[in-house]
Amino acid sequence: MTSLMNQLGVVKRGIVRADPAAVEKLSRFGVATIHEAMGRVGLMKPYMRPIYTGAKICGTAVTVLLQPGDNWMMHVAAEQLQPGDVAVAACTTDNADGFFGDLLATSFQARGAKGLVIDGGVRDVDELQAMGFPVFAKAIHAKGTIKATLGSVNIPVVCAGALVNPGDVVIADADGIVVVPAAMAQQVADAAEKRESFEGEKRARFAAGELGLDMYKMREPLEKAGLRYID
Amino acid sequence: MTSLMNQLGVVKRGIVRADPAAVEKLSRFGVATIHEAMGRVGLMKPYMRPIYTGAKICGTAVTVLLQPGDNWMMHVAAEQLQPGDVAVAACTTDNADGFFGDLLATSFQARGAKGLVIDGGVRDVDELQAMGFPVFAKAIHAKGTIKATLGSVNIPVVCAGALVNPGDVVIADADGIVVVPAAMAQQVADAAEKRESFEGEKRARFAAGELGLDMYKMREPLEKAGLRYID
Amino acid sequence: MTSLMNQLGVVKRGIVRADPAAVEKLSRFGVATIHEAMGRVGLMKPYMRPIYTGAKICGTAVTVLLQPGDNWMMHVAAEQLQPGDVAVAACTTDNADGFFGDLLATSFQARGAKGLVIDGGVRDVDELQAMGFPVFAKAIHAKGTIKATLGSVNIPVVCAGALVNPGDVVIADADGIVVVPAAMAQQVADAAEKRESFEGEKRARFAAGELGLDMYKMREPLEKAGLRYID
Amino acid sequence: MTSLMNQLGVVKRGIVRADPAAVEKLSRFGVATIHEAMGRVGLMKPYMRPIYTGAKICGTAVTVLLQPGDNWMMHVAAEQLQPGDVAVAACTTDNADGFFGDLLATSFQARGAKGLVIDGGVRDVDELQAMGFPVFAKAIHAKGTIKATLGSVNIPVVCAGALVNPGDVVIADADGIVVVPAAMAQQVADAAEKRESFEGEKRARFAAGELGLDMYKMREPLEKAGLRYID
Amino acid sequence: MTSLMNQLGVVKRGIVRADPAAVEKLSRFGVATIHEAMGRVGLMKPYMRPIYTGAKICGTAVTVLLQPGDNWMMHVAAEQLQPGDVAVAACTTDNADGFFGDLLATSFQARGAKGLVIDGGVRDVDELQAMGFPVFAKAIHAKGTIKATLGSVNIPVVCAGALVNPGDVVIADADGIVVVPAAMAQQVADAAEKRESFEGEKRARFAAGELGLDMYKMREPLEKAGLRYID
Amino acid sequence: MTSLMNQLGVVKRGIVRADPAAVEKLSRFGVATIHEAMGRVGLMKPYMRPIYTGAKICGTAVTVLLQPGDNWMMHVAAEQLQPGDVAVAACTTDNADGFFGDLLATSFQARGAKGLVIDGGVRDVDELQAMGFPVFAKAIHAKGTIKATLGSVNIPVVCAGALVNPGDVVIADADGIVVVPAAMAQQVADAAEKRESFEGEKRARFAAGELGLDMYKMREPLEKAGLRYID
Repeated sequence: MTSLMNQLGVVKRGIVRADPAAVEKLSRFGVATIHEAMGRVGLMKPYMRPIYTGAKICGTAVTVLLQPGDNWMMHVAAEQLQPGDVAVAACTTDNADGFFGDLLATSFQARGAKGLVIDGGVRDVDELQAMGFPVFAKAIHAKGTIKATLGSVNIPVVCAGALVNPGDVVIADADGIVVVPAAMAQQVADAAEKRESFEGEKRARFAAGELGLDMYKMREPLEKAGLRYID
Repeated sequence: MTSLMNQLGVVKRGIVRADPAAVEKLSRFGVATIHEAMGRVGLMKPYMRPIYTGAKICGTAVTVLLQPGDNWMMHVAAEQLQPGDVAVAACTTDNADGFFGDLLATSFQARGAKGLVIDGGVRDVDELQAMGFPVFAKAIHAKGTIKATLGSVNIPVVCAGALVNPGDVVIADADGIVVVPAAMAQQVADAAEKRESFEGEKRARFAAGELGLDMYKMREPLEKAGLRYID
Repeated sequence: MTSLMNQLGVVKRGIVRADPAAVEKLSRFGVATIHEAMGRVGLMKPYMRPIYTGAKICGTAVTVLLQPGDNWMMHVAAEQLQPGDVAVAACTTDNADGFFGDLLATSFQARGAKGLVIDGGVRDVDELQAMGFPVFAKAIHAKGTIKATLGSVNIPVVCAGALVNPGDVVIADADGIVVVPAAMAQQVADAAEKRESFEGEKRARFAAGELGLDMYKMREPLEKAGLRYID
Repeated sequence: MTSLMNQLGVVKRGIVRADPAAVEKLSRFGVATIHEAMGRVGLMKPYMRPIYTGAKICGTAVTVLLQPGDNWMMHVAAEQLQPGDVAVAACTTDNADGFFGDLLATSFQARGAKGLVIDGGVRDVDELQAMGFPVFAKAIHAKGTIKATLGSVNIPVVCAGALVNPGDVVIADADGIVVVPAAMAQQVADAAEKRESFEGEKRARFAAGELGLDMYKMREPLEKAGLRYID
Repeated sequence: MTSLMNQLGVVKRGIVRADPAAVEKLSRFGVATIHEAMGRVGLMKPYMRPIYTGAKICGTAVTVLLQPGDNWMMHVAAEQLQPGDVAVAACTTDNADGFFGDLLATSFQARGAKGLVIDGGVRDVDELQAMGFPVFAKAIHAKGTIKATLGSVNIPVVCAGALVNPGDVVIADADGIVVVPAAMAQQVADAAEKRESFEGEKRARFAAGELGLDMYKMREPLEKAGLRYID
Repeated sequence: MTSLMNQLGVVKRGIVRADPAAVEKLSRFGVATIHEAMGRVGLMKPYMRPIYTGAKICGTAVTVLLQPGDNWMMHVAAEQLQPGDVAVAACTTDNADGFFGDLLATSFQARGAKGLVIDGGVRDVDELQAMGFPVFAKAIHAKGTIKATLGSVNIPVVCAGALVNPGDVVIADADGIVVVPAAMAQQVADAAEKRESFEGEKRARFAAGELGLDMYKMREPLEKAGLRYID
C-alpha cells in the first residue's frame, strides 16, 4: 500500500477496515492506555485538540489528502464513508484554513461517520458542537476554501506526524489521538484491557498512601543510579 | 485616512461609524458567513481566541495603537467609546502583556462598549466572564503594564493581520474575527443574508443523504481533472 | 542554595516552607494582584495553562527537575510532599511528554498535595478534573515516559521562565502562575491585601462612568507628552 | 485606495510611485535609521529574513495578493513591474509554499525589478543568490504551487504585519524591512539623513569611553525614577 | 514493511537500497525539481535546515527511531551504514537535544555515510562543517543525551512529516529535503531530467523579456476567471 | 543573592567575578564540552543564536533586567562593565524589540566588554559584525526602544531559561550558550580539560572504523534491553 503514499488524484474504494468487534473494544479505553498497550507509539502530535470539551471519537479511518486552501476532496471522501468511519484529513503543506463546517458535517453524519480528525482548520464550531459531531483539529479558522485541485482519498497519509492507512482504527479523546493499524486492532484492544485491569488496584494502593517508590521497588535502583538524600 | 496609519501621539475624535442598521443586521450572522459574503477576505489571524466559551461581539471599531508593556492609550480610548463600539487594540510590536483587566472593562462597559479585540494579552479573565464583557485576545497573561509612552486612538491599525479603520464593523465569534469596512456594511449584511438563506435547504438535502458530489455537480469536473477510482 | 541549582541526582529533605498563615492569606488573592504587589515580577510565561476551566492552586513548592521523556523523579518527589505543598516540575530541556497522570495524582493527593505546575505535558485530564486535582501545564499529551535517569528534588529550578526555590509559595489561577519567595510571603500577602482594598472603590467610580483620564489625573501628563486631539 | 483593500480579481495599472529621487536617497540609509526617522513605525515583523547573507533592497512596491499554494498572480504582477520596483507579496492566509523560484526571478529581473519581499516561501535559493536577485521571505520551501485562483495586483495589502500601498518605498536589509508611504518618501529621506549625521559624532564619543549616562544626561532622571546603587 | 512502523527494539539488517545508478542520477538534480518530478509530494517540513551554508546530501536511507534525550540507537545505526547511505533520524516525540556531534560523525564518515537528516538537534556544528559532513536538522543544541532506552533501526519512520522507508533515496539541499521511494528512483530521476531540460529554454525566454502570461498562455484563462484591469 | 532576584530599580556595584585564570581556561573549550563537564546542565534554550557566523564569547556576566521596548538599563549597565565582562540581558516579558545597536556596542567595546547575550532583539547587525562585537540574541529587529522605565543591573536573572548571577562565566559559540557559576569556574574548566583529552583518542578510533558499539561495550546491554536483529 505504501506505493500509493502521497499520490495525487486517486480514490481507493475497496479498503479493508479493522474488525468491528476490535474497534468496539478499543472504544472502551482511553488514548493514553491504548498507546501504552501498543508500546508507546502511534500518537499524533499534541497540537491537535478537540474543538469542544468532551469530544471523543473511535472509528475506522477513511483518509483524505487535501491541497492548501482547497476542500474538494472532502466531498469525494463523503461518498467513501461508511457507518463507523472517521475521516482523517492531511494536507500537502501546513495550512490552517477552515476546510470543514456544518454542511459537510451534516453530510458526513448522514453517512454514519463518527467524526473528523484534520491536520488543518475547521469552522462553524458552535454548530458542530450542537450537532454532536466531534472534530479534532490543528486550528479553528473561519477562512473558506475553494474546490479546484485534486488530492486523494484512501491512500496512506501522514497526519499530525502519524502514518494513517485507510481502515486503521483512530481513537481520539481529551489526551490526544492514537492510530492502531487495522491488523493489530484486536491484539491492542486485548493488551489495553489487560493494562487497565491492573490500574484499579494500583489506584487503591496509591489512594491509601503507598508510595510508587515502594510499589514499584524503585529505592534500590535509585540508590544504584547514585541518588543522594541531603538534609 | 491612510495618511494617519501608525502615526503616534494622535487621537481622532470625529470618526464616521458604520450605519447602525447595517451593524445590527451583521450581528445576526456568523463570522464565517460574513467573510464569505465579502469574498473570503477581512479575517484576523486564527491565533486570536475568545477568553471564555460563548463570547461574541459585533460593533463599530474604536482603534487603539499600544506600545509594548504600556496601556496608557486604553484610558485615552475609553473617552472615545460610544454605545455600540468595540475597542480594537494593536501594538507597535509583538507583546503579550496583560494590557487590560476588570477595572478597564468596567469603564468600557459603562461607556456602552460591546467588547474588546486585542492583539496582545489580557488578565482578570474570570471577572471579565462574570461581567459578561467579551474579549478576543492573543494571550492571557497576568503581567501588568505601565503608562508612560504615547500611542494613538482612532487611526488605521493592523490588528492580527487585518487592517482596521475606526468606524469599521468588527464581528467576533467562536470561528474568528472579521472586519467589514464601514462603507460596505450594508452591502455585506445583505450578501450574508442571501448566502444564509441558501444554507437551510442545502443542510436538509445533506441530512437526507445527498452527496456534495451530486448537489454541486462535481463528478464531471473531477473526472476532467483526472481523478481515478481504483478498487 | 544556589549552589544546588540544576545539580542532578540530589533530593533535599529539610526544606524551609513559607509560613502557613502567609500562604493562607495569599490564597485569597488572584495572581494578577499578587504579582503587582511584588512589583510586577515573579510570573511564569503565559504558555502555561490550566488543564481544566476553574483550576486554582496555592501552596508551597516541592520542586522537581525531570529529564526528557522520564518521570522517575515524580515518584521520588511524592515522598517529599506534605499537606499544602504544590509540586513544581521543570525539565532539563523542552519536552511535552505526558509525565503525569491519574495514578501519580492519586498518590500526590493522598500526600495532601494541592496540585501540580509542570513545564511539560500531562495526560488523563478528564480523570484529573474528576478528582479535583488542579494542574497547570505546557501541554496535554498522552505520550508515556520511562523511569531511567536521575533528576533532582527540592533544588532551585527554572520553571517556565521563573526561578522557584523549594518552599516558595506558588499561586496559579486563570490569569497565570506567580512565585512568591518564602521569605517574602507575609509582606507580599499584606501588600496584596492593601492593593485589593483600593480596587473596590475604583470599580465603583468606573462603573459610574468616571474616566481613568480623570481618576488618575492623566490629562496633563498626556498633553505634556505631546498627545494631540484632531477632529 | 483603501476601498480596494483585499479585493480579489483586480489589477490596478496606473499606480503612483514614490519620487525616484527620494527613493534613491532612501537607499543610502539602513532600515533601522529610516524607521526611526518615521517615528518608529512602518516595520514588518522580524520573522521575515533575507534568503542569503548580504541581500539588500530599495524600491517602489508593486503589491501582490496570493492565494495559498497558488502563484498565478506572480505572473500577472510581472507585467506591472517597472525598473526600480520591488514585488511585495502577501497571502490571504498563512502559507509557506515555494511561490517563487529562479524562472520567475529571471522574468522579474528582466523587467528591472530590484527584488522580492514575500510573506510566504521561496525556492531555488542558491540560484537566486547566484543571480544576485535579493529576496526577503518567511520561509524557504521546495514545495511548488498551482495557477488556479485569482488574487490581485497593486491593491493595498497587509504583508508581515505592515500595510503596503502600491508605489510605497520598501527598504530591506539585514535588520529587517520598512515601508515608507510614497507621499512621505522625501520627508523621511531628509529626516534619515539628519539623524545619521548625528551618529558619527556620538560614535566617536562612545569609542572614547564617554558613557551614555553622561552623553544623554540620564543620571538625574534615573535618580528621580528611584534607581538605587548598592554595594 | 508497514507492519514494523514505529515498533521499538528492532534492527532490520537486510534492507533493499535503491539502485545506485538511479541514486547517482538523482544527485544531479535539485530538491525542488525532484519533488516536481514526483508530482509535488515527498517533501519534509521546511523547519528542517542545513547546519551550514552549502550542505547537500544524496543517498539511501538508513532510518533511526530515537527516544527523547537518548542517542543510543545512533551507535546501533552506525553498524548498518554502508557507503552511500544517509542516516535519517526521527524521534518518538518532539525533542531538540543534541543527539549527534563530531565523534559520531567521524564514525559515520568512516562507514562511508553521506550525511545525516535528523528531526532533532545536533552539536559540534563547526567541527561538522570542517569535516565536510553535511547535516540537516531541526535545531542546533549543545544539550547532550544518554544511552538508556531502545528505539529502532531500519523500520519505516515519519521524519519531519515525511514517511521514510529504509533504502529510500533522500536528497537534501538549500531548498529542503525530499524522499524518493526506492522503487521509484529511476523513474523519478528520468522525470527530473526531462523537466530540467525544458528549464534552460524557458530561462532564456524570460531573460529576453517574454512574460509568463504569454509563454504559458494565461491571458485567456485569467480573463475567464474574471480578472479585471483598472486604471 | 537570591533575595534580589527580579527586583526592579537596583544596581549592584561590588559584584564578585569568577577567577580570571579559570575564565581564560574555560575560553579554550566549546559550549558542548563545558556543559558535559558540568553534568549536562547550565544551557540556555536553543532559540538563542549568534547574529553572525563565527561569533564566540567567553567572559564574566554583568546582568541586565530590561522592560519591554525599553533599553534604559543598557546605558546603566555600560558603566558597570569591566574588561572581560559579557553583558547578559533578560527582559521582564517576551519581547523581540531591537534593544541594542552599534552605538551601544561602541560604548560596551570601549569598556572592554567581550560581547552581549540578550533574550530579546538587536539591530545594526552588519555594523556589529564589522566591529567584531559578538552578540547572541533571540531575534534581529530594527524596532527601536525608549528610555522610560527602571529595570536593574547585576541582580540574578533568568535569561533564555538559565539562571545567571552577576560574575558567572558565560560561554557562547555556534552550539549554544552555557552559564558556569563563578564559584565552580576552576573546577568546571579542569573537568572540561580532562574530558577533551579523551576525545582525541576516541576520534582516531572512530576514524579507523571502530564502532561505538564495541568502543563503549554496548552490545551486551543492548541485548539485555531486548534489542532484536531481524533479516
